[in-house]
Amino acid sequence: MRGFSTEEFKKRTNRAQHLMQRHDLSALLLTTEPELRYFSGYLTRFWESPTRPWFLVIPASGKPIAVIPSIGAALMAQTWLDDIRTWSAPDLSDDGVSLLSDTLREITPDGARIGCPDGHETHLRMPLGDFAIVKSNLGKRRIVGDCGILRDLRMVKSDAEIQKIETACQIAGRAFARVPQIASVGTPLDQVFRRFQMLCLEEGADWVPYLAGAADAQGYDDVISPASERPLETGDVLMLDTGLVWDGYFCDFDRNWTVGAASPTVRDAHAALVDASDAAFELARPGVTAAELFEAMNSVLKRGGKGTEAGRLGHGLGMSLTEWPSLIPSDQTILQPGMVLTLEPGIEVGGKILVHEEDIVITQNSARYMSPRADPEIPEL
Amino acid sequence: MRGFSTEEFKKRTNRAQHLMQRHDLSALLLTTEPELRYFSGYLTRFWESPTRPWFLVIPASGKPIAVIPSIGAALMAQTWLDDIRTWSAPDLSDDGVSLLSDTLREITPDGARIGCPDGHETHLRMPLGDFAIVKSNLGKRRIVGDCGILRDLRMVKSDAEIQKIETACQIAGRAFARVPQIASVGTPLDQVFRRFQMLCLEEGADWVPYLAGAADAQGYDDVISPASERPLETGDVLMLDTGLVWDGYFCDFDRNWTVGAASPTVRDAHAALVDASDAAFELARPGVTAAELFEAMNSVLKRGGKGTEAGRLGHGLGMSLTEWPSLIPSDQTILQPGMVLTLEPGIEVGGKILVHEEDIVITQNSARYMSPRADPEIPEL
Repeated sequence: MRGFSTEEFKKRTNRAQHLMQRHDLSALLLTTEPELRYFSGYLTRFWESPTRPWFLVIPASGKPIAVIPSIGAALMAQTWLDDIRTWSAPDLSDDGVSLLSDTLREITPDGARIGCPDGHETHLRMPLGDFAIVKSNLGKRRIVGDCGILRDLRMVKSDAEIQKIETACQIAGRAFARVPQIASVGTPLDQVFRRFQMLCLEEGADWVPYLAGAADAQGYDDVISPASERPLETGDVLMLDTGLVWDGYFCDFDRNWTVGAASPTVRDAHAALVDASDAAFELARPGVTAAELFEAMNSVLKRGGKGTEAGRLGHGLGMSLTEWPSLIPSDQTILQPGMVLTLEPGIEVGGKILVHEEDIVITQNSARYMSPRADPEIPEL
Repeated sequence: MRGFSTEEFKKRTNRAQHLMQRHDLSALLLTTEPELRYFSGYLTRFWESPTRPWFLVIPASGKPIAVIPSIGAALMAQTWLDDIRTWSAPDLSDDGVSLLSDTLREITPDGARIGCPDGHETHLRMPLGDFAIVKSNLGKRRIVGDCGILRDLRMVKSDAEIQKIETACQIAGRAFARVPQIASVGTPLDQVFRRFQMLCLEEGADWVPYLAGAADAQGYDDVISPASERPLETGDVLMLDTGLVWDGYFCDFDRNWTVGAASPTVRDAHAALVDASDAAFELARPGVTAAELFEAMNSVLKRGGKGTEAGRLGHGLGMSLTEWPSLIPSDQTILQPGMVLTLEPGIEVGGKILVHEEDIVITQNSARYMSPRADPEIPEL
């Protein structure tokens, strides 16, 4: 099923309002795509245009209020929201600033605290100059941080959200299984990238916001570069890592192949990566911390003295390609049922790296693979 | 050719530094993808991950300084930059904040003004909380707006940039020409969307960040909704509007088709849209304003009493899907050679709308179509 029940949006809003009360916040001011969509269901690729700001205001009680460019009115009217305030954007002299200020003044008492996400992995999607004017329009009201409310809510997924991520994972799984059809000795890497995105679409992706990858002899140097025109050669390790979207939710996992037979080094490295993600998977359950999943993977990788300096070994996943928490030694986030995570160990082999990634969901007592777990034996093209 | 010559990045940086001097700015602080890429050439899809902040600092003289997560070091080292400062991100207690603060203190005198884009179509891509800490770390230095420097620079494209946009336009033109292969009576609209993205990739797009469209009887209601599963029916008007990317540069134009023979109303409306964009095209040359292009289109549309409330009738185009200026009555931006614009008239017919879009570049004395100009006669599927 596409979309969500109105009941789900009500629950999300009620939870937010409960936390707002606890943190003495009279409203939330939201400006980014996943923040607006989380509470409204407003789904469009139009966010690719950076021109117009969009605002959602969560009052202390009642439904969220949309303060948006008029071009979005028809689509927003299809959501569960009733109060949709629009202006004709872009307006070079007042691009929603007065309308937003008036709305915030109307629904909060003087002296109120208005929460706006300000923590790790957040940003404010509106011009800084306009934000300063909004703040100066609010009298004694103050815009403060959101006390992590958005993070806390979005980090735990509902069953309906999990199903969407699982659908995205299945689509990617089918596309990865077809890679031997599009890549072999002599195929330029940029062609592999184009054809793999086509496979993702053919298998059911709505769109493919993210594809990274690499191919080089016995491993690769870097996992975020654009594809070169270099043809695949025997002895290469090819890696493709995709974040495709189904109904607004991402998967994020990768697969490796060797071009021709794998060397013993590459074979062992790949098996160690799958061992590492399995170790984290076996440990993953409510009550365990993000840091403990990191340690579980890192200890497998260090066994061969082969860990990388990747920074982190996995992360949250959902409406964004990457979300809280981070699988790093300092992230003490306690896992809860409904959290969706990637397990993303990396390994160094002879100056090159190999990375591997799976997606899992935390269940009542353990975890479940959402991506079709890779075989320890690296497949051959 | 992919990428740009080092000479081009030097010119961009020199121009910025010249404007910084004029506006008494000792440095620029940049945080978004196009801003960083404009001065460095740093191109990666990794920005899809909102986790990590990335910074580029333009000093009063000399090359830009990258202050970035270590995961980007290898790729950034391939650019013309020498000074690349990294930290292991994500770092929950200090995510580049100290490194950025130190860098800004090192390269600017106390009391300096540091420019950060704060105007229309900009935002700050870092957590607000961290931004406040950076500001408090700077002593008597102040972060102020960028006085429109980024806007002024990016709005006028170099020949090399124009070639990339033109390549993107040609790819989309070939994909649009093949739409009859993928869409006919009975094809669900979401399938048309998937297959059209595949055509874009097959014709050479690196990726397809944007696709909008609609199909409904004798016109459509909305141009930003996701595709439904509704099959195309005889009498529908199908519209597809794509922003595909080649080497980091967008095209942005659309095409319309009728399913079966066009009604006289739809035929006339489509011809009027092409008339409108032609009227703006004929007028477009250095010295004319964005507002005058709006008026040229609007007067054609109003002739039949059929203008829409679209807000604007076109916009700039380049590293982002939409850029300054806006073709609206209040935008007095004077056109210059090298500006790339979309002409995007819309028309109302019997409660439905039709939109049309072309891409043009302003030349020394006139303008040139970059998209293959549509025929006034709406094509039939």
